[in-house]
Amino acid sequence: LHPTYARMPVTIFEHMSGLARELGAINLGQGFPDGAPPQALLEALARASAERSHQYPPMAGFPELRKAVAGFYERTQGLELTPENVIVTSGATEAVASAILTVVSQGDEVLLFAPAYDAYAPLVRRAGGVPVFLALQAPDWRYERSAIEAAITPRTRALVLNDPLNPTGTVASPEDLAMIAGVCRTHDLFAICDEVWENVRFDGRAHASLLAQPGMAERALKIGSAGKIFGATGWKVGWIVGAPEVAAVVARAHQFLTFTTPPMLQFAVAEALDEAAIAKACTASWEQTRAVLLEGLDREGFVTLPSAATWFSCIDLPASGIPLDDRTFSERAVREALVTSIPLSSLWEGDHTPTHIARLCHCKPAPMLEDAISRLARWR
Amino acid sequence: LHPTYARMPVTIFEHMSGLARELGAINLGQGFPDGAPPQALLEALARASAERSHQYPPMAGFPELRKAVAGFYERTQGLELTPENVIVTSGATEAVASAILTVVSQGDEVLLFAPAYDAYAPLVRRAGGVPVFLALQAPDWRYERSAIEAAITPRTRALVLNDPLNPTGTVASPEDLAMIAGVCRTHDLFAICDEVWENVRFDGRAHASLLAQPGMAERALKIGSAGKIFGATGWKVGWIVGAPEVAAVVARAHQFLTFTTPPMLQFAVAEALDEAAIAKACTASWEQTRAVLLEGLDREGFVTLPSAATWFSCIDLPASGIPLDDRTFSERAVREALVTSIPLSSLWEGDHTPTHIARLCHCKPAPMLEDAISRLARWR
Ligand SMILES: CSCCC(=O)C(=O)O
Ligand SMILES: CSCCC(=O)C(=O)O
Repeated sequence: LHPTYARMPVTIFEHMSGLARELGAINLGQGFPDGAPPQALLEALARASAERSHQYPPMAGFPELRKAVAGFYERTQGLELTPENVIVTSGATEAVASAILTVVSQGDEVLLFAPAYDAYAPLVRRAGGVPVFLALQAPDWRYERSAIEAAITPRTRALVLNDPLNPTGTVASPEDLAMIAGVCRTHDLFAICDEVWENVRFDGRAHASLLAQPGMAERALKIGSAGKIFGATGWKVGWIVGAPEVAAVVARAHQFLTFTTPPMLQFAVAEALDEAAIAKACTASWEQTRAVLLEGLDREGFVTLPSAATWFSCIDLPASGIPLDDRTFSERAVREALVTSIPLSSLWEGDHTPTHIARLCHCKPAPMLEDAISRLARWR
Repeated sequence: LHPTYARMPVTIFEHMSGLARELGAINLGQGFPDGAPPQALLEALARASAERSHQYPPMAGFPELRKAVAGFYERTQGLELTPENVIVTSGATEAVASAILTVVSQGDEVLLFAPAYDAYAPLVRRAGGVPVFLALQAPDWRYERSAIEAAITPRTRALVLNDPLNPTGTVASPEDLAMIAGVCRTHDLFAICDEVWENVRFDGRAHASLLAQPGMAERALKIGSAGKIFGATGWKVGWIVGAPEVAAVVARAHQFLTFTTPPMLQFAVAEALDEAAIAKACTASWEQTRAVLLEGLDREGFVTLPSAATWFSCIDLPASGIPLDDRTFSERAVREALVTSIPLSSLWEGDHTPTHIARLCHCKPAPMLEDAISRLARWR
């Protein structure tokens, strides 16, 4: 069996969620909201299921959804897109897989920044490529031009930028984006832009896509996720945005991964994207529970790292008076405090692994967050 | 961009369905029922959507669905399976992709029989493998041991068996299955068994899986599809069945293709599989419309090839008095007769391409089938 998969353990998310279920622990590990998605989304689903065909949608997605995605990005990010720029996928993971299988050929090197979402490296390897890791540094996780350029070789084909960044919740600065775009242009690199957290931002600013940087329209593939925008992680509706000629080729990869995405989910997401208030209300509600977690942790003397986005906050373990490395912390906290977290080093390959940071998910009901904070405080 | 995708045209199914929509033609091309799926399935969907979580299901699928699939195969095919044998995927295409990406490494050869469903060869190529085509012969499409053995080299790693076979609608004989299993054992090959048509059979016999042959449990990956069983092609709920150790590795590939499959669809499919009558009623209704197509074609002097399964029937063009090759027939029939078909040669790579056969889909309302038959008869 292919060595990429044969030697692979179960993901950290499955592992920790499995422990949480088994032990009855509060699950602040794997990122998902605890409550139901917006009522309007569920009503649109019921309507679509009652009124629309249950047979194959067009392979690239319904025109209604492709248009709604383009409209959403015009409204929220000022991007000028047409439906031809958008390919609907069965979740953002499938979008990442389609992009990597399209862009990466045997022997190609792909720059990944650590920390890195756990799907990138195995997909690059399975595509025949070589992941080249560049370590970012706590607590700012800034991108350094010199480090990036030092890692580039004639075989470098692409980079993956996850912005906002999971697990840290940080956001690339305008200077970072301009610099990374410059590197891509100079060295003729593709950019796979995993921007699934674009609408989960708490600094009051609009997301700026790498795709919008000069010269990037033809070389960037921007990935988005309805599951993240609407807090419906099981829905698995995502998309890739790119130049029509490139998107059309990525669609070929998609057509042989899932072919298409369930029609009732596509119609419901299209309706919800068209109604600007729905996504805004989701972000506003996460802003509140995030404040509950951050204030509660602070009150109890836990130190968190600066962040501006995503469903996650990171604790600095030693600064919080916890003398454990992150994996030991996560394994013991789930068993002894019944609070589930993700050790940051589990989303790291390459050198300079930081082992002092644990990630907590804050898109949960306030009482659950308060309960988790007291459990951790009592246990510490 | 990867040459597999960069040079690839849109699939024949997209092409013909696009023409059908554009021209307002009756679409007997791409395989999908025209009507709604069973009411019980839709009610189960509404219930699951109202009552269950909309967040990430377990990566390998809900235990309820894995158990229901195992139970369905015990009831309908006498297989002894546990939930650990079953990995839920986002449709059978994702199952095929996960299986191929797991089994095939750089340079491996994979035996494919022509006619071949259009996803197999690109996936083998993208996995770094080399598809080796073996031509079957009309009208029986029998598997020949000598031809298979002649194609095997030290690099041969696997074969893909699509049984029942799309586009021909034929079924491998018990002797064929025993022979193919013997070849797999002798030459240490994996078998990827695309059995999505297993429940769409009209010869009164139970489907026999290659997985059930002696010595195949450890080397076969059997792929099934709720979309085909229940006539809900947009749902994209499929699964892979294999030995637990192999299935666990295939699940690693799946976890980085879609990670998981929407919860409401999984629960609805589990409920519907548990209720034996629902799948049976689907097959019974397709048996009726199939008879309408076959009898109508016969009445009008069209000659069809023998078949026993799938949603498809094949016309022998010259025997039906149509002096056109299959591609010309399909392109002209959709434009001039407003009837959409699939030319069999579009699902063919390698030598000995037959060009005298067109495929028609019969899981359509009887009046639509009658209308299509008269249009073809008038036009011919
Ligand atoms: C697909 S499970 C992981 C979900 C997620 O994005 C996260 O927790 O980081
Ligand atoms: C995924 S489109 C093709 C559907 C199908 O199985 C067929 O028509 O053969």
